[in-house]
Amino acid sequence: MSIKEILLGKPLKNNELSHEKLSRIWGLPIMASDAVSSVAYAIEEVLIVLIPAVGILAFHMVPFVVIPILLLLLILVLSYSQIIDHYPNGGGAYAVAKENIGSTASILTAAALTIDYILTVAVSISSSTAALTSAFPTLQSYKIEISLLCVAIITLGNLRGVREASKAFGMPTYIFIFSMAILIISGLFRLFTGNLAPIDYTGSPFPQNELDGIGMLILLKAFSSGCSAMTGVEAISNSIPSFATPSTRNAKHVLLMLGGIIVFIFGGTSILALKLQVVPIEGHTVLSQISAAVFGHTFMYFVIQLFTSLILILAANTAYNGLPQLLYLLAHDGYVPRQFSTRGFKLSFSNGIIFIFIAASLLIIGFKSETHALIPLYSVGVFISFTIAQYGMFKKWRTMKERGWQYKCWINGFGALVTLVVSVIVFSTKFMHGAWILAIAIPAIMILMISIHKYYEGIGKELYLEEYKPYYDQGGVASTQCILLVHDINKPFLKAINYANSISGNITALHVCRHPEHAIELRDQWERLKIPVELKIIETPYRDIIRPMDQYLWQREKNLKPGENITVILIKFITAHWYDTFLHNQTAYFLMHHLSKHKNISTVVLPFHYILDKKHFDK
Amino acid sequence: MSIKEILLGKPLKNNELSHEKLSRIWGLPIMASDAVSSVAYAIEEVLIVLIPAVGILAFHMVPFVVIPILLLLLILVLSYSQIIDHYPNGGGAYAVAKENIGSTASILTAAALTIDYILTVAVSISSSTAALTSAFPTLQSYKIEISLLCVAIITLGNLRGVREASKAFGMPTYIFIFSMAILIISGLFRLFTGNLAPIDYTGSPFPQNELDGIGMLILLKAFSSGCSAMTGVEAISNSIPSFATPSTRNAKHVLLMLGGIIVFIFGGTSILALKLQVVPIEGHTVLSQISAAVFGHTFMYFVIQLFTSLILILAANTAYNGLPQLLYLLAHDGYVPRQFSTRGFKLSFSNGIIFIFIAASLLIIGFKSETHALIPLYSVGVFISFTIAQYGMFKKWRTMKERGWQYKCWINGFGALVTLVVSVIVFSTKFMHGAWILAIAIPAIMILMISIHKYYEGIGKELYLEEYKPYYDQGGVASTQCILLVHDINKPFLKAINYANSISGNITALHVCRHPEHAIELRDQWERLKIPVELKIIETPYRDIIRPMDQYLWQREKNLKPGENITVILIKFITAHWYDTFLHNQTAYFLMHHLSKHKNISTVVLPFHYILDKKHFDK
Repeated sequence: MSIKEILLGKPLKNNELSHEKLSRIWGLPIMASDAVSSVAYAIEEVLIVLIPAVGILAFHMVPFVVIPILLLLLILVLSYSQIIDHYPNGGGAYAVAKENIGSTASILTAAALTIDYILTVAVSISSSTAALTSAFPTLQSYKIEISLLCVAIITLGNLRGVREASKAFGMPTYIFIFSMAILIISGLFRLFTGNLAPIDYTGSPFPQNELDGIGMLILLKAFSSGCSAMTGVEAISNSIPSFATPSTRNAKHVLLMLGGIIVFIFGGTSILALKLQVVPIEGHTVLSQISAAVFGHTFMYFVIQLFTSLILILAANTAYNGLPQLLYLLAHDGYVPRQFSTRGFKLSFSNGIIFIFIAASLLIIGFKSETHALIPLYSVGVFISFTIAQYGMFKKWRTMKERGWQYKCWINGFGALVTLVVSVIVFSTKFMHGAWILAIAIPAIMILMISIHKYYEGIGKELYLEEYKPYYDQGGVASTQCILLVHDINKPFLKAINYANSISGNITALHVCRHPEHAIELRDQWERLKIPVELKIIETPYRDIIRPMDQYLWQREKNLKPGENITVILIKFITAHWYDTFLHNQTAYFLMHHLSKHKNISTVVLPFHYILDKKHFDK
Repeated sequence: MSIKEILLGKPLKNNELSHEKLSRIWGLPIMASDAVSSVAYAIEEVLIVLIPAVGILAFHMVPFVVIPILLLLLILVLSYSQIIDHYPNGGGAYAVAKENIGSTASILTAAALTIDYILTVAVSISSSTAALTSAFPTLQSYKIEISLLCVAIITLGNLRGVREASKAFGMPTYIFIFSMAILIISGLFRLFTGNLAPIDYTGSPFPQNELDGIGMLILLKAFSSGCSAMTGVEAISNSIPSFATPSTRNAKHVLLMLGGIIVFIFGGTSILALKLQVVPIEGHTVLSQISAAVFGHTFMYFVIQLFTSLILILAANTAYNGLPQLLYLLAHDGYVPRQFSTRGFKLSFSNGIIFIFIAASLLIIGFKSETHALIPLYSVGVFISFTIAQYGMFKKWRTMKERGWQYKCWINGFGALVTLVVSVIVFSTKFMHGAWILAIAIPAIMILMISIHKYYEGIGKELYLEEYKPYYDQGGVASTQCILLVHDINKPFLKAINYANSISGNITALHVCRHPEHAIELRDQWERLKIPVELKIIETPYRDIIRPMDQYLWQREKNLKPGENITVILIKFITAHWYDTFLHNQTAYFLMHHLSKHKNISTVVLPFHYILDKKHFDK
């Protein structure tokens, strides 16, 4: 077993792909982890904006923020469900934009989503590391290493295949969802039975009530902060092909279930926070306060604490499903390197997964795994993709004019407008704190994608064969002229001469001479043995082999007749152990690299096996 | 101009080698820097042993230690001068041992000297960095980086060629030697005119006079400590070929001059230390105390201070002359990789120089540039080489029996005995402090050298051609079977077909099929175009190209008839920019590497130029 097999398990055959698809049961937690983890914190985001601005009045305003968010969420779930129907190959907003708006919009979506997916990984891992290091302060100085280790583990899990990843990472998500359900139901039950009172903050520092009027701006800000509850909704639409057949139906079901879960958790936690009048305190999250109030410091409280920190890591996992699928589509359309379109050892898009690993690791290292530095860049991309997706669907309905199109147009048009507003607010409030980086990164990635696309287009044209007409069809006889690099007359030389005779009738032995005495010796031996091949000796005053050889070859190349080409024979020593190679001049690859500059020269690497391995050479 | 040329200057032609040779004027400082720097500290080494043991009595004992050292030095200079005469190709002790004792002794010498040369670099650079960081304590935390920078500068200077290095590094050595001469002469003059009195240590902590008798052991220990004055004497004998013709005469002259300088500096500083009754104090070297006493804190005092710290760095430079020359001889004899025997860009043995850089840097990093950790390992090797050289010369005289051989035998025999005793004392006193590492490292290096030698011997036998009898001489006609890897029918494919037709009449197109739909398409196109070549499609269920291709090729290889071989054609895309390569599957090299396992298969790399560079393709 190779190391690769130990790490990744047995390779899978092409026809085993269907086994690797996500069922509804396991698709839900895989696709939900990002969304659910952001929902758990959404009400806190709202209160953090409202309470410092309007104090206790905030709780009166909560419904005016939460209900619009739930409505918008409804619109999004609805329209993504339609996207799933119409774009069953995945790609979500990218596919919608490509078909309905144009390539620039689709690339913008792709760039924004790519960045956001990678940020999801970096942010969620960094914040779970922060939770860990605040529990064990001695680990503080290993923050970056711990984060990188987490990324590596999730990467490895995903490289092992979709199915294995979904089982390993799905269960904790389910536990989290169920414990949240228990929290909300018990909380609501205790509320209605009247034995749950608002939290008493006497003694704690309650934020000053500055009451400067309920400005529209504050409501908007609170609204867009709360919109973080929606991130993660788009993931399913990107990875429809990962679902078992019928994949669109399964994907839609999972989306609807996810929508229900989000509404339930966001609505439930909002009501509880409102009724308990929870104030966000440094080091004591709203969720933790609610569960402390509902359960006291019982077993359930700790379960919720544990799984809220675990779900943060798992949020990263959603990206490992969405992004590789998106990159596959982009590679297919020629916007990213083609390597992203091949499936690996375990039928996952392993290059995409490794790309996430590298990019997220670089972000973690670059930002020193500091969540507060990464957060401002996060979730801008996803709202851009929401806006474009809604607008794309709006245009689609207008063009298709299928039954009830006006109605659909209204929904998506309104959705596009609201998400556009949210995008602008999110981007502008975060701009100075780091989101300006996106203003550079997104266009840069778009330019890169466009130039890759141009390159592939160019190559496609260049390689296209209008007419298959080989040289022999034109009546000519092709032939090669063989150039043999020679240093000593020994067994490898004999092998090379024999090979040269098998491919050509025009052979030159070339000796690039560093030691004139040796060249004289060689010439003598040559004449003594009467070798019927021309020996060409060229001097190299600067002990450099490349340049004089190159000069000679340009000369030879110039004198070629039509149909003729040159073959240079290099000998490569094959040794029994890798470390033996240090004892040989490793010039073969080096020379070959240089020789490939010559359009009409091919390089032959002739292996000479120094120690014959019985296993390989039964002949 | 390339970066290489900017760093190293213009390349030199083979026939310019004589310009790069050392004259006597510049040879002296290059060869002397190591020896002179150790001489400057030798009397201190003696006093450090004596004073704590016998207190003020030490000064009575100094002559009994210094005079034997001077005598031994005389013997060494004499015998190394004979070694230069008899071994004009350099190699010193290694060459002596090889000829007169045997290969094991010569390898022992080589291993010991190699380690010692590298330690010279690491120790001298580390101690000069220590001097710098004690002057500027803020640099303390950059100690390793500063040391590495110094090694890099000296390496670069030496890569620029012997002549340039000798000019850059020779002048400070001369200044040091001359300022030492001024110190000694003025000191002695003031002594004899009676206006220089012993240093008054009242107020300073004078070491306790423990007076437990003048043990023989203490004298021996002081003697072997003082023997550090001799290190560096062997360097000249290693690098005779670096001298301008007549090289032996020049080398001998330089050796005699060096001997004179050592005697003068060591003798002079000893007398001054004795008469001034200098006591080594932490942070105030004997040399600094002497020069303070002679000059007061005048300009000359600072010159001596400055150049004693500079000479420490330059001591490293001696190794850059000795070791590459030794490695050249070892490479020539097949004990180290052959790459050490080629001259570089500037006609220096650049691989040897780079080897010193790497090895010394690793030592500096490994020992964190701590001089006290490196010192115990230092100078054991050189005494081993002294002993072996003396013993080898002793045996030589006994065998040659030339005029006056008995006399020479006595001298070298006595020298061998004394240096053996010194080796044992030095090694055993330092053993627990780190010299035990040498007891592992020296045998390890010897074993490595012996196995490299065996490998080259084996290869020599394996490659040796008893009889030049190519296949065509035996009446057979050699031919190749061409296998063409095909993915699409496009221009590169056409080029490959044309090439295949130029070398073979037996062509198979091989398609390793990852996507069955694509294979069907290819087969259709193949038949439509009526390509008169067999298309072989092999499936790869695990998306791995190597294994199924390998299986197919073993099969083909098995069926080869005598005189036949197989040529696999791979296409390599040549792009305009290096970064374009990321957009292509870089499988050509990878496949070639695997294919070279097959003894009877050659790999052709056929370049396909995507963007034609006008400069290169005038045809």
